[in-house]
Amino acid sequence: MEKTVGELATFLDGEVVGNADTIITGINGITEAREGDLTFIANPKYMQYLETTAASAVIVSRDVTSSGKTLITVDNPYLAFAKALTVMTAKEMEYFGVSAGAEVHPDAVVDPEVAIYPLVYVGRSAQIRKKAVLYPGVYIGEEARVGEESILYPSVTLMDRCVVGNRVIIHAGTVIGSDGFGFAPDGTGHMKIPQVGIVQIDDDVEIGSNCSIDRAAMGVTWIKRGVIMDNLVQVGHNVVIDEDSIVVAQVGISGSTQVGKNVILAGQAGLVGHIKIGDGAIVTAQAGISRDVESGEAVSGTPHMPHRKWLRVMNVVPRLPEMRRELKQLAQRIEALEKGKKGEGEKR
Amino acid sequence: MEKTVGELATFLDGEVVGNADTIITGINGITEAREGDLTFIANPKYMQYLETTAASAVIVSRDVTSSGKTLITVDNPYLAFAKALTVMTAKEMEYFGVSAGAEVHPDAVVDPEVAIYPLVYVGRSAQIRKKAVLYPGVYIGEEARVGEESILYPSVTLMDRCVVGNRVIIHAGTVIGSDGFGFAPDGTGHMKIPQVGIVQIDDDVEIGSNCSIDRAAMGVTWIKRGVIMDNLVQVGHNVVIDEDSIVVAQVGISGSTQVGKNVILAGQAGLVGHIKIGDGAIVTAQAGISRDVESGEAVSGTPHMPHRKWLRVMNVVPRLPEMRRELKQLAQRIEALEKGKKGEGEKR
Amino acid sequence: MEKTVGELATFLDGEVVGNADTIITGINGITEAREGDLTFIANPKYMQYLETTAASAVIVSRDVTSSGKTLITVDNPYLAFAKALTVMTAKEMEYFGVSAGAEVHPDAVVDPEVAIYPLVYVGRSAQIRKKAVLYPGVYIGEEARVGEESILYPSVTLMDRCVVGNRVIIHAGTVIGSDGFGFAPDGTGHMKIPQVGIVQIDDDVEIGSNCSIDRAAMGVTWIKRGVIMDNLVQVGHNVVIDEDSIVVAQVGISGSTQVGKNVILAGQAGLVGHIKIGDGAIVTAQAGISRDVESGEAVSGTPHMPHRKWLRVMNVVPRLPEMRRELKQLAQRIEALEKGKKGEGEKR
Repeated sequence: MEKTVGELATFLDGEVVGNADTIITGINGITEAREGDLTFIANPKYMQYLETTAASAVIVSRDVTSSGKTLITVDNPYLAFAKALTVMTAKEMEYFGVSAGAEVHPDAVVDPEVAIYPLVYVGRSAQIRKKAVLYPGVYIGEEARVGEESILYPSVTLMDRCVVGNRVIIHAGTVIGSDGFGFAPDGTGHMKIPQVGIVQIDDDVEIGSNCSIDRAAMGVTWIKRGVIMDNLVQVGHNVVIDEDSIVVAQVGISGSTQVGKNVILAGQAGLVGHIKIGDGAIVTAQAGISRDVESGEAVSGTPHMPHRKWLRVMNVVPRLPEMRRELKQLAQRIEALEKGKKGEGEKR
Repeated sequence: MEKTVGELATFLDGEVVGNADTIITGINGITEAREGDLTFIANPKYMQYLETTAASAVIVSRDVTSSGKTLITVDNPYLAFAKALTVMTAKEMEYFGVSAGAEVHPDAVVDPEVAIYPLVYVGRSAQIRKKAVLYPGVYIGEEARVGEESILYPSVTLMDRCVVGNRVIIHAGTVIGSDGFGFAPDGTGHMKIPQVGIVQIDDDVEIGSNCSIDRAAMGVTWIKRGVIMDNLVQVGHNVVIDEDSIVVAQVGISGSTQVGKNVILAGQAGLVGHIKIGDGAIVTAQAGISRDVESGEAVSGTPHMPHRKWLRVMNVVPRLPEMRRELKQLAQRIEALEKGKKGEGEKR
Repeated sequence: MEKTVGELATFLDGEVVGNADTIITGINGITEAREGDLTFIANPKYMQYLETTAASAVIVSRDVTSSGKTLITVDNPYLAFAKALTVMTAKEMEYFGVSAGAEVHPDAVVDPEVAIYPLVYVGRSAQIRKKAVLYPGVYIGEEARVGEESILYPSVTLMDRCVVGNRVIIHAGTVIGSDGFGFAPDGTGHMKIPQVGIVQIDDDVEIGSNCSIDRAAMGVTWIKRGVIMDNLVQVGHNVVIDEDSIVVAQVGISGSTQVGKNVILAGQAGLVGHIKIGDGAIVTAQAGISRDVESGEAVSGTPHMPHRKWLRVMNVVPRLPEMRRELKQLAQRIEALEKGKKGEGEKR
């Protein structure tokens, strides 16, 4: 895609310092950029590259008002760069309909303006809405639904009756709606509890690759609007993740746990079942959460504690051998004092 | 499915209190149930809902003998509910044979009464037994075998020569029989050790989605009867998991480790290779197991210790900064005492 | 495959003690081996089986010079066994070209000597080089490239423009090139940062099953020559893993982290983003790495510390409740001493 600096500045709500007619044909990092590229500086420590970059234009904050380079000045250079990147790299999607090599059940309801690649399976009574894209190897179960402009990458599995909203992105290999882990001891072994609920994924959610999101035992496992989830995440049955929360790679969330809005669950954290994580809480990497976390709290460790406390505790942990030695030495010194005292007593 | 309360009571070995002719058309939780639904109370704290639920009948324990509601009284309400749920939600499976869109090798041995969906691949000399169900995207390698009434959900990979027993369920995206992680340093890098063994999965096993179970270097990686495994679990080469054990999500078991019967490995636990976990042992969430665990033992932490001890230890951990301060103060007080003593000595 | 002991000895740079004409038809462990099998002893503790094994020949170290068994004596018995296993179990690969049931874009560049199974998808302008093998369910995105003699097992996803070198093995279900986890807060939620870089996998790499390797935001996520990676590993965008490093199952590496050469990352370890792990470093199982690790260092724990220190610390941890009790007792004894002193003072 090709745009002038002026067009981009208008799109980014920015102002041009320099030549608005400069043609931008690409976009790249400040040190990698070449002629024709747009780049950005969000972190002041990169200002040193402003005059030396080969880029034809640079997005900077509004306090930069002159340069040998053509500038686009904006409120938030990183966000503006993300927007520019989005528009410059947008692929013209072709909604070619249903490929000959796809297997779509005759009772499925498929909008004509979709892209269903070869080797996709769409089951009975499934619904595929306008501008949905299903890559090869995708499986859509019976009565499942994929909303408008949603993209399911290769080998995504959406089991029967599960629902994906609009503008959802699901990366390759992710499984939505596998059975929840429910068993009742029956005297000899474990009897499977049928998992008859669904998974509901609301609008504007992005889910990474090779995640597993289990269907509810009854009712709904629910990923709400704006949640972003990284790769290899485990979500148990009947979990609810509220709006705009961030779930980093390899996190595990056990059954029926409720995660609030704007929560951050960092990498490899584990949450037991049936607890609540309050809005805006932060769970740091590898933490093991076994009880409720209050709104706005930051917690770390297994079992978890407030993050600031954890930092202090972890500062002491490497000193444990030394503390143990000190403790022994103090005991000896006390013993010496006690003996001395006793000796004194005896002396008297 | 539609059944009378009387029919269900007979099926559940229960007794009817109230109207045995009440028609049951659905099944749901106590607060979600509507007219026509069956529900249950297993936990006494839900007894408050007995008279107010909209359900048409309630499964309760035998000590409840009268109610405005129609009751089915049983020994174990939760188990009875699980059974009722199973029978009420059972899908009539259609064994339609091999779909036109499936790729089945002419030398594969496939029972006529199976359901092989389109986009399935079955390799040379593979065996697919009676009432097996293979969903789209399933891959069955050469000489692999799927037993009777087993279900392989979408994109399950069963590599060559691996064996799946009867009534086994494998959820989407799981890989059975990828190469074990075996390498020998050869002076310049790592030489791959061919992994020529197999994976054997016995009857009545259930395996979650996106698991990886590696084939043995030689011999067998063996998942025995009745094991239930959650999602995203890693099982190394030559691991043996004995009957009825439970492996929760994101557990990792390294090569050649032997897990006994009725063991519970909780979420994100990790086991090193070449160790034994005794029958009935419990490994709690995120524990790191680096040596044998005795039968019946419950262990926690990394490195692990007995669970009760771990609880006591974890009770102390948040107090470490305080302990460190105390230790310093005690040292000062001892020093003062020592000085005092010395002073005393000098005074004399 | 059938070979004489003499042929094998030549291939292994070994010497025959006994009958060089003995026919070897199989290969197995020392206790499982049967007549016709070759086996090996690398660990002296298995020397007890040398005379009793049913194997027809045994690979041993050069210091073993006589036996009732036919021997092949070599410098490194384990490595020699690995080589013998490789040659004895090598499957004659059939490069049958492109199956009728595969979906290959007409603009893809496919060597005639390949094996592309049915149900494979190869996108526009992708390149599949000589002797590459693509199993069913593999997806090759637009302009992606698979090098010579590389094997992609079932349901591997290689997203657009990503590059796989020569002699690379990728096990089933692994996703190469899913979007990196990049978002910018935009005031109301999170704006997706387009991930326009690629993944580059160099020659002689092996990657396990169900891994997720994200494409770079810009530039390259880079897995260099000879890296071996186990199952269920997460690799974030712009990560670099240098030559011959070993990444064990369920490890997570966050964005932009650089892993040196010959590094070992043990199972379930987690690395934050933007750090460097020096050449030859070892990160032990479940460790949480939040800052740089020096070359050759071995580190453990969360947050990590030198492995030897960690061992000493972990030796103290189970004694914390006892230490706390001791601390209290010491405080009491000091108090008693202080009171005694005061009493003494008063007495005077």
